[in-house]
Amino acid sequence: MRTPVPEYLQEVLNDCVGLGEGAVADYIPELAVADPDVFGIALSTVDGRTYSVGDDEREFSIQSVSKPFAYAAALTDRGLERVAQTVGIEPSGEAFDELSLETDSHRPKNPMINAGAIATHQLLGGEGASPRDRTDRILEFCSRLAGRQLTIDRSVAASELATADRNLALAHLLRNYGVIGGDAHEVVSGYIDQCSILVTVRDLGVMGATLANAGAHPVTGEQIVSPPVARQTLSAMAAAGMYNGAGTWFSEVGIPAKSGVSGGLLGSLPGQVGIGVFSPRLDAQGNSVRAVEVCRRLSADMGLHLMEAETYGSTVLRGVVAGEDETVISLQGVVQFTGAEVVLDHIQDLTIDSPTVVFDLQRVDRFADVGRRMILEGMRRLVLDGNRVVLDDPEGTLPDPDLGDGTYPELRSMTFAAREPRV
Amino acid sequence: MRTPVPEYLQEVLNDCVGLGEGAVADYIPELAVADPDVFGIALSTVDGRTYSVGDDEREFSIQSVSKPFAYAAALTDRGLERVAQTVGIEPSGEAFDELSLETDSHRPKNPMINAGAIATHQLLGGEGASPRDRTDRILEFCSRLAGRQLTIDRSVAASELATADRNLALAHLLRNYGVIGGDAHEVVSGYIDQCSILVTVRDLGVMGATLANAGAHPVTGEQIVSPPVARQTLSAMAAAGMYNGAGTWFSEVGIPAKSGVSGGLLGSLPGQVGIGVFSPRLDAQGNSVRAVEVCRRLSADMGLHLMEAETYGSTVLRGVVAGEDETVISLQGVVQFTGAEVVLDHIQDLTIDSPTVVFDLQRVDRFADVGRRMILEGMRRLVLDGNRVVLDDPEGTLPDPDLGDGTYPELRSMTFAAREPRV
Amino acid sequence: MRTPVPEYLQEVLNDCVGLGEGAVADYIPELAVADPDVFGIALSTVDGRTYSVGDDEREFSIQSVSKPFAYAAALTDRGLERVAQTVGIEPSGEAFDELSLETDSHRPKNPMINAGAIATHQLLGGEGASPRDRTDRILEFCSRLAGRQLTIDRSVAASELATADRNLALAHLLRNYGVIGGDAHEVVSGYIDQCSILVTVRDLGVMGATLANAGAHPVTGEQIVSPPVARQTLSAMAAAGMYNGAGTWFSEVGIPAKSGVSGGLLGSLPGQVGIGVFSPRLDAQGNSVRAVEVCRRLSADMGLHLMEAETYGSTVLRGVVAGEDETVISLQGVVQFTGAEVVLDHIQDLTIDSPTVVFDLQRVDRFADVGRRMILEGMRRLVLDGNRVVLDDPEGTLPDPDLGDGTYPELRSMTFAAREPRV
Amino acid sequence: MRTPVPEYLQEVLNDCVGLGEGAVADYIPELAVADPDVFGIALSTVDGRTYSVGDDEREFSIQSVSKPFAYAAALTDRGLERVAQTVGIEPSGEAFDELSLETDSHRPKNPMINAGAIATHQLLGGEGASPRDRTDRILEFCSRLAGRQLTIDRSVAASELATADRNLALAHLLRNYGVIGGDAHEVVSGYIDQCSILVTVRDLGVMGATLANAGAHPVTGEQIVSPPVARQTLSAMAAAGMYNGAGTWFSEVGIPAKSGVSGGLLGSLPGQVGIGVFSPRLDAQGNSVRAVEVCRRLSADMGLHLMEAETYGSTVLRGVVAGEDETVISLQGVVQFTGAEVVLDHIQDLTIDSPTVVFDLQRVDRFADVGRRMILEGMRRLVLDGNRVVLDDPEGTLPDPDLGDGTYPELRSMTFAAREPRV
Repeated sequence: MRTPVPEYLQEVLNDCVGLGEGAVADYIPELAVADPDVFGIALSTVDGRTYSVGDDEREFSIQSVSKPFAYAAALTDRGLERVAQTVGIEPSGEAFDELSLETDSHRPKNPMINAGAIATHQLLGGEGASPRDRTDRILEFCSRLAGRQLTIDRSVAASELATADRNLALAHLLRNYGVIGGDAHEVVSGYIDQCSILVTVRDLGVMGATLANAGAHPVTGEQIVSPPVARQTLSAMAAAGMYNGAGTWFSEVGIPAKSGVSGGLLGSLPGQVGIGVFSPRLDAQGNSVRAVEVCRRLSADMGLHLMEAETYGSTVLRGVVAGEDETVISLQGVVQFTGAEVVLDHIQDLTIDSPTVVFDLQRVDRFADVGRRMILEGMRRLVLDGNRVVLDDPEGTLPDPDLGDGTYPELRSMTFAAREPRV
Repeated sequence: MRTPVPEYLQEVLNDCVGLGEGAVADYIPELAVADPDVFGIALSTVDGRTYSVGDDEREFSIQSVSKPFAYAAALTDRGLERVAQTVGIEPSGEAFDELSLETDSHRPKNPMINAGAIATHQLLGGEGASPRDRTDRILEFCSRLAGRQLTIDRSVAASELATADRNLALAHLLRNYGVIGGDAHEVVSGYIDQCSILVTVRDLGVMGATLANAGAHPVTGEQIVSPPVARQTLSAMAAAGMYNGAGTWFSEVGIPAKSGVSGGLLGSLPGQVGIGVFSPRLDAQGNSVRAVEVCRRLSADMGLHLMEAETYGSTVLRGVVAGEDETVISLQGVVQFTGAEVVLDHIQDLTIDSPTVVFDLQRVDRFADVGRRMILEGMRRLVLDGNRVVLDDPEGTLPDPDLGDGTYPELRSMTFAAREPRV
Repeated sequence: MRTPVPEYLQEVLNDCVGLGEGAVADYIPELAVADPDVFGIALSTVDGRTYSVGDDEREFSIQSVSKPFAYAAALTDRGLERVAQTVGIEPSGEAFDELSLETDSHRPKNPMINAGAIATHQLLGGEGASPRDRTDRILEFCSRLAGRQLTIDRSVAASELATADRNLALAHLLRNYGVIGGDAHEVVSGYIDQCSILVTVRDLGVMGATLANAGAHPVTGEQIVSPPVARQTLSAMAAAGMYNGAGTWFSEVGIPAKSGVSGGLLGSLPGQVGIGVFSPRLDAQGNSVRAVEVCRRLSADMGLHLMEAETYGSTVLRGVVAGEDETVISLQGVVQFTGAEVVLDHIQDLTIDSPTVVFDLQRVDRFADVGRRMILEGMRRLVLDGNRVVLDDPEGTLPDPDLGDGTYPELRSMTFAAREPRV
Repeated sequence: MRTPVPEYLQEVLNDCVGLGEGAVADYIPELAVADPDVFGIALSTVDGRTYSVGDDEREFSIQSVSKPFAYAAALTDRGLERVAQTVGIEPSGEAFDELSLETDSHRPKNPMINAGAIATHQLLGGEGASPRDRTDRILEFCSRLAGRQLTIDRSVAASELATADRNLALAHLLRNYGVIGGDAHEVVSGYIDQCSILVTVRDLGVMGATLANAGAHPVTGEQIVSPPVARQTLSAMAAAGMYNGAGTWFSEVGIPAKSGVSGGLLGSLPGQVGIGVFSPRLDAQGNSVRAVEVCRRLSADMGLHLMEAETYGSTVLRGVVAGEDETVISLQGVVQFTGAEVVLDHIQDLTIDSPTVVFDLQRVDRFADVGRRMILEGMRRLVLDGNRVVLDDPEGTLPDPDLGDGTYPELRSMTFAAREPRV
């Protein structure tokens, strides 16, 4: 049997390829000559699988799609507080190249507009970073997310630099307000290098899936950014990623996203998927016509929408088996607040006749911090009620199981031979 | 053992009760005399449990917190398309009582600002509804969500009507542009009745949990609004629910929310919880000081954040047991896209030696439409590969299991006695 | 010989009658049925002559052209300071019916937009004025300016009241901010009565000439408003009278003006003329197409432009005749700063050999306050230099000629028989 | 006798010197070190006299006060139409350094804001002008207006160039929109040179008086700019010269003006005076505190206000002497529309019994075009009525007295010996 997912993607591609309107961006000469009909789609799951169709190996310059990644890198390099001094996180309600500085602080309103992206670029690589360091940092960062060494398209960069008056205006304005230091032209040059990094839709899919996966690379498992940084980046995308119409995008599509002038589009749905689409024809707002439609279809057909997060708390409790000697409580998946709440509520109503209560954690993927604290509290209370609590956690999924009073539950030795094999 | 959730809530309440700043709204005389120190918190899970602490039985007028519910009712009564002709869904970037009409259409930008709420109120109860019908409709609708008969505080309504110049201005303006018809004063009077519905934080918790539960009441299971309506309402709350600072709220709290001038706050996190808070001291933006802090705490301490939706696809595949005669594939929880994808990807790699493949759906809560289609497609392919596919679905969780070619998988008869009891 | 001025006006009318574009205002039913081809022009000099061509006796409702007059009446009734608390004098940069309230004070930005005009109307007739008093006041005031009893068109007023939602919105908003008190609907009703006063272009010409003549009626000489009120009213017209494009109007036409939705236009050029034009076809900004063009022509062809005020100081000194016994210094026209400066500068260089200096003021029209002070100071200095100063001022044009030290110049007795006859 | 005007100015200076609030501009280092207490006032009449008090010989950098002069020079070099393609003439309602570009054309809204001034500077010296040519042009132009060779303060220019980020931002933005061409940094450098021209308040007084005198230098009589250019420049000053509060300035002061960040202020009242004030302490809007107050005083005390243009038409008719042989009609001053209208209206009512009508033009200063046309038309009609018309115009004040039909009035030979001497 072959999974039908690629065929679903192909169907979406077929349905959207007919959209012939829109025009290739013409204000950057090198982009103006792009083939308007190239079209590729990739979808990566947080479990590490990437599906793709169309021109999925075609490289294109990342342009504004680099903005969330530069923001994530700057957050990593400088911390949320320092970055927040330089750039806000409010929707601007304006076009991508508007100035949109906040009234008093003169901070750019968010990192997804050019002013904010230039200010963000200047934060890369830490306090004393040289222009070269900043470019190296973002290239290395994106390469790690993509899982391969990316390169910069020098001819695109040169072409953009020749028509960079608006970005130079922004940089001078930011310098004027003290939002950035250094040489205005160097910052713009570095920012244009960032925009000229070459990617494929498969790269974008994996990069988006990393953000969707709380910052952990879905294939290598490497924690490239911390969960709070991933969350902040996704929030910025949700608030300000799509030019204009943030609310409409939110309700109609509901996938945090960022589009770029070369025709690329990145989507990232927390806990679910990363999406990469490429089609150079743009609508009046500067979003890729087909890429927008692809997202609309994925949201409508596949229920990929931020507000359609399904009830998943109840599946955390895999089962309870009450024996004479022991009552085995099995958990599974990711244990966060609502899952732990289900477990504790269930235990609360249990009549436990056996002297021992075993928590079988073999199928737990991960404990969120709150889930860990709640389950440990439940164990502590069972101990207080006179039960003997045993932990069956051969992989140590529940770190540091201190019950809060310096005592620890007993650990089951690895003697069970016949475990049900993990899927 | 007692679940520690109430104690967690109490801790949050204790930490926030010290926030003494902010002032009771004074522009409505009846609200100005409110006790500023009342404080209650409720949290309802989509599984139907409500926890609450503090003044959790104190009734207060719902005020602007009624806006998302009126929007949901109007969407239900008129449909998304008709409502979209009257009111948009974009953040306004302005204070709650600003006019914020769209430039060309003169639609109010969203249903969370007063202009939009007045226009939304006028849609209630269908085409020919009288002013009385509209008031009856919203009262009945909110009562169903709360699970009890709510009432209108007539003295608050009278007090607001006496100082309703701004809302009258909005209503006349909307009439001027043809956004609403009828008598301007009657609409405002009805809207003020809507704002004067009395609720408790426990009511708000359950009402929010219904939205979070795709429109199905978490206790009664009644589908009060359709999933698309619930999604649209949550989207509107996320885009425009909190006055000003939508992006900051998004990143720092990440719970779609709506606050009201009496000090109430509603939160609703899809798939997880509904939240109700009440504390009348307001900050300069008109949000309850303590209620905002409570949400911040719940988000930070309990990981309740839209962008922290955890990976849950992998738990859908409960297990695969390969026997000589049959291979049993067990699913569980809610099967949507990412879950179905995990299942199909897993089957793809299986070497199936048995003639029969059984899909055990006894622990499945629900199939999302895309999940149903994908699993059926998987079955169809297994049949094409020469397998005999059997469905073990005693409760009919998978509706109309047509394999797409008019054939159906075989249904396992209800003969197995010794099932593992469902939790 | 007949003066060619009427023929000039006829030529302007003939040139502009061909402008067929524009449409009659349609949002007020009663205005929508107006004959679009009616066309009249009147021009009144500050000396009291009125020239007119076309449909110069056709009455039409004054509409927004009433705004400067209501402002002048309110300034007269309440004083500049009190009026300034209620309404500003800044251009709004917005369409006539925008809200345009100032950010902090919530004052309407100027009295020429509807919000400001409604607030101004409420000031009419003094503190305790009833709605009826306010209507009576503006009708009486406009009648005095026009020099005949004007009436209100009740069918126009009724028609406007039926579609007054926007003005009602403005009135409620103003009440909300405490800018106006009383009943919102009564104020709007009174304001609509004001807009329904019937005038002809000849009326407007004379009314405009009164403002141009520092508030003195050019025919009767009655001082209807004080010079500061006339000045303030003209300033408001210059800053905000023409919808949009204040700067363009200023540079291209340069005549303080106010247009109305019925197609009327008032112009008033200080010291020179009042203008009334009527043609109901409006452009997109709501200004009469032909009336705007008429003003353009009058400005271009006749040099009627605020910035073309000609040097007139030098004509104030009619002549100096040095005789053996007396030196006669003759003044004429209006003596303000630049005129008095010319006189004093000239005297300064004179070698006066005669014992007596006579100031012949028989041809002086009027002394501005500064002119009076300067000429008296010159006389005082001549006395200090040892001269005998005599005043030939049979009509008492120079009031209270106190030389500043309690002494007065000698007055020439009316004995000269053979004066040159005054023109 | 000495004219009291200098003493009036001294009194104004004494009254304003006490205003100690405000601070020297600090964003340009070289300006920050200015002596805050320097204070000078100059007033120049259109007749060519300049009065001044205080630090009237102190040079300071002209800064933004150069803007109207650069605009006048650009209008002269390129024509109104070409300049209008580059810069508008609408008030911006914003601070001096806001971008304020028009929505569609991207033209700066007016030449008085920095964006407009930079765009205007680029127009100087004609199509192919080099950066050096532009600087030379504005220096030469201002020198001619001032009547002496001005110089550029190189240390101020260098200081401004080092902190020119905002102007560089504006220049890049203007280049981005194609409003300006050439190198952004060169334009800004040239503009800063323009701002660094050194002037005294006496210079500004004479420069302003030239604009007030329809472009003719009040001392030399040289026509430095054409009357339409002077008018357009004054209109721009009136519409947008004072930062913020254009309407308030208009009503309270009523003198077209322009202020600069070094503390200079230029005023120009058509037909009357030019004003120069210097005092470096600035208010929050960037206007000199004392200079603003000086203008207020000059307006209030001396009636120098655009809306106080006095009736001057009536003085044009000096007198009519009816003799047996000839009727002599004497004119004087500047004959524009209202003056000619008075003359023609008077003749119309005359019963002329003599065969000859003499027009005595010996005291006429100048005919405005409309005045010339009207008087000639009057003569033509007298001829048609059978009169013999004779012109007594020894200085040829009435150019080309063609009666419209190829005939000319008879010219009186220069035989009269005993003319009354011209004042």
